[in-house]
Amino acid sequence: MAEEKRKELKELGEFGLIDHLTKGFKKVNMSTVKAIGDDAAVIDRGDVFEVVSTDLLLEGVHFDLRYVPFKHLGYKAIAVNVSDIAAMNAIPKQVTVSIGVSNRFPVQALEELYIGIEAACENYKIDLIGGDTSSSASGLVISVTAIGEVEKERVAYRSGAKEGDIICVTGDLGAAYMGLQVLEREKQEFLANPNMEPKLADYEYVVQRQLKPEARVDVVYDLKEAGVVPTSMIDISDGLSSEIMHVCKSSKVGAQILSDSVPLDDLTKQTAMEFNINPSVCAYNGGEDYELLFTVSKEDFKKIEKNPDISTLGQIVSEKEGAFVQTKLGERVPLTAQGWNHASK
Amino acid sequence: MAEEKRKELKELGEFGLIDHLTKGFKKVNMSTVKAIGDDAAVIDRGDVFEVVSTDLLLEGVHFDLRYVPFKHLGYKAIAVNVSDIAAMNAIPKQVTVSIGVSNRFPVQALEELYIGIEAACENYKIDLIGGDTSSSASGLVISVTAIGEVEKERVAYRSGAKEGDIICVTGDLGAAYMGLQVLEREKQEFLANPNMEPKLADYEYVVQRQLKPEARVDVVYDLKEAGVVPTSMIDISDGLSSEIMHVCKSSKVGAQILSDSVPLDDLTKQTAMEFNINPSVCAYNGGEDYELLFTVSKEDFKKIEKNPDISTLGQIVSEKEGAFVQTKLGERVPLTAQGWNHASK
Repeated sequence: MAEEKRKELKELGEFGLIDHLTKGFKKVNMSTVKAIGDDAAVIDRGDVFEVVSTDLLLEGVHFDLRYVPFKHLGYKAIAVNVSDIAAMNAIPKQVTVSIGVSNRFPVQALEELYIGIEAACENYKIDLIGGDTSSSASGLVISVTAIGEVEKERVAYRSGAKEGDIICVTGDLGAAYMGLQVLEREKQEFLANPNMEPKLADYEYVVQRQLKPEARVDVVYDLKEAGVVPTSMIDISDGLSSEIMHVCKSSKVGAQILSDSVPLDDLTKQTAMEFNINPSVCAYNGGEDYELLFTVSKEDFKKIEKNPDISTLGQIVSEKEGAFVQTKLGERVPLTAQGWNHASK
Repeated sequence: MAEEKRKELKELGEFGLIDHLTKGFKKVNMSTVKAIGDDAAVIDRGDVFEVVSTDLLLEGVHFDLRYVPFKHLGYKAIAVNVSDIAAMNAIPKQVTVSIGVSNRFPVQALEELYIGIEAACENYKIDLIGGDTSSSASGLVISVTAIGEVEKERVAYRSGAKEGDIICVTGDLGAAYMGLQVLEREKQEFLANPNMEPKLADYEYVVQRQLKPEARVDVVYDLKEAGVVPTSMIDISDGLSSEIMHVCKSSKVGAQILSDSVPLDDLTKQTAMEFNINPSVCAYNGGEDYELLFTVSKEDFKKIEKNPDISTLGQIVSEKEGAFVQTKLGERVPLTAQGWNHASK
């Protein structure tokens, strides 16, 4: 009897894996509106939709305690989950936090972690409603589930983008990625010379974007006030390129992104240059910006075009055109999940 | 300046730790009915209460992959969370599952895990609505959040037990603990002699209670059908003794437990004897039974006393009497979180 070939996890990738593992699951409850496949799940609560999102943060994979302060880690753990709630055009309300900790941490370290969690709960006006604490045989484990609410007619999925819609993004991109590069460089220098003083003062904005990102709940309120419901929305956790492709796939459309349209902070550009990285690459491939990428109809766009927190990237095109960056010379460079192909620029 | 003394985690214990870390947190949302401190959090959803519970399962702490099959692990991860929902007298509806996995697992192992998760979702009629997959630098991490619903007038907290109420428990206790002892013994023998055949056939019931526990959602339906709302309820995850003390503390009452009232399966008794363990100890201190411990008024008790899945343990007494086991000779042996003191029996 031939033995079944061992399938390796890396052959599937993260998104392939969860689709593969859950493809046979059936929906049995009427209240379940949307299960796996968006930034958050959606449950019908009569007047409103409840949205639920969950994230796992693991030491050595998602954070490095050699340069991430516990307080910032606590804040970030909440912010990244709140960002998923915002990406449904919803307002966060409750959160649960479970932690697994080894005895190598003193109570003070966890107190710092919870100071950060509390600061985020206060900032986003959410209640910590539960959690589990456990010892861990290895590194620190943080699991957060966030719960939010949205009026049914205001929920935004990844799947509603239409040809001709304007593609918008909040804030600026790529800074968190450059912050990570700066922190990694400091770590290497510290390992080589433990007496060195950290030189982070010149990189404050990019380092803060990495260590203490903010979820754009403010923009969810802005959109409501403007009377605009995005036709699609997603938060930027894995890099702009990957998120645009998620929207295109879910909405069965293409995307035309104009080159030089990506909002970049001056310090991000300057730091990228110092590291010999093309600044756009940080935005397209970097990730962890936790800004919102969304599409709106041309009519709705007029209601928000003066908002200083919102930039336009381009427009939605037909599925067969695909997702691409349009250069100033008129060339179309296809986007890939790994970013767009700079070699052909 | 004197350095602050390093506080060790073990000085606080699990319950002390979470209370300590979250004591400053304020509730800001009207919809949050109950935050930390019961089996699940409670959110007001208009007609009904939503209940939310979350649990973290870590390799090397909560399970040992040397004898826990992935399929059973997946089932158990869901069942233990559903048990927390049942302990609020609620019906489970949705669940999220996040996993952190190292590359040492082939895809097939995760397929097995999700077969177990799917079986549990089908059995408890719940929808898997979300989750996160991540690589893990160390062991397998499973985080589950379960969501349920209960009519507002039927929710059961730990805090409602009244003097004179009858203390009830479902099923039988201590089997999961004896199952763990059997599996641990097999592991030691296997480590000594890897060619040995496992000898588990004679211990099927206790091993199954450890590897594949069931949440007592059936009893939640039974109680509803009988028109009974428990005055308090909790599930037995840490051992009967500890759970009785939680109810007493939350309800500000005492508990009189009659000796020999604890329901024990014959195989549990037999296996305990083989291991030279007092069978009651397995029930009082063992844990992982996932049965329901609850209290009902004397009038309501008449409506359920014929239910073969429900036994009585004793009755609620005044807070000043404390929680104790009453022996046949009339002695009162105080319960402790580590079980009652057998030496003084």
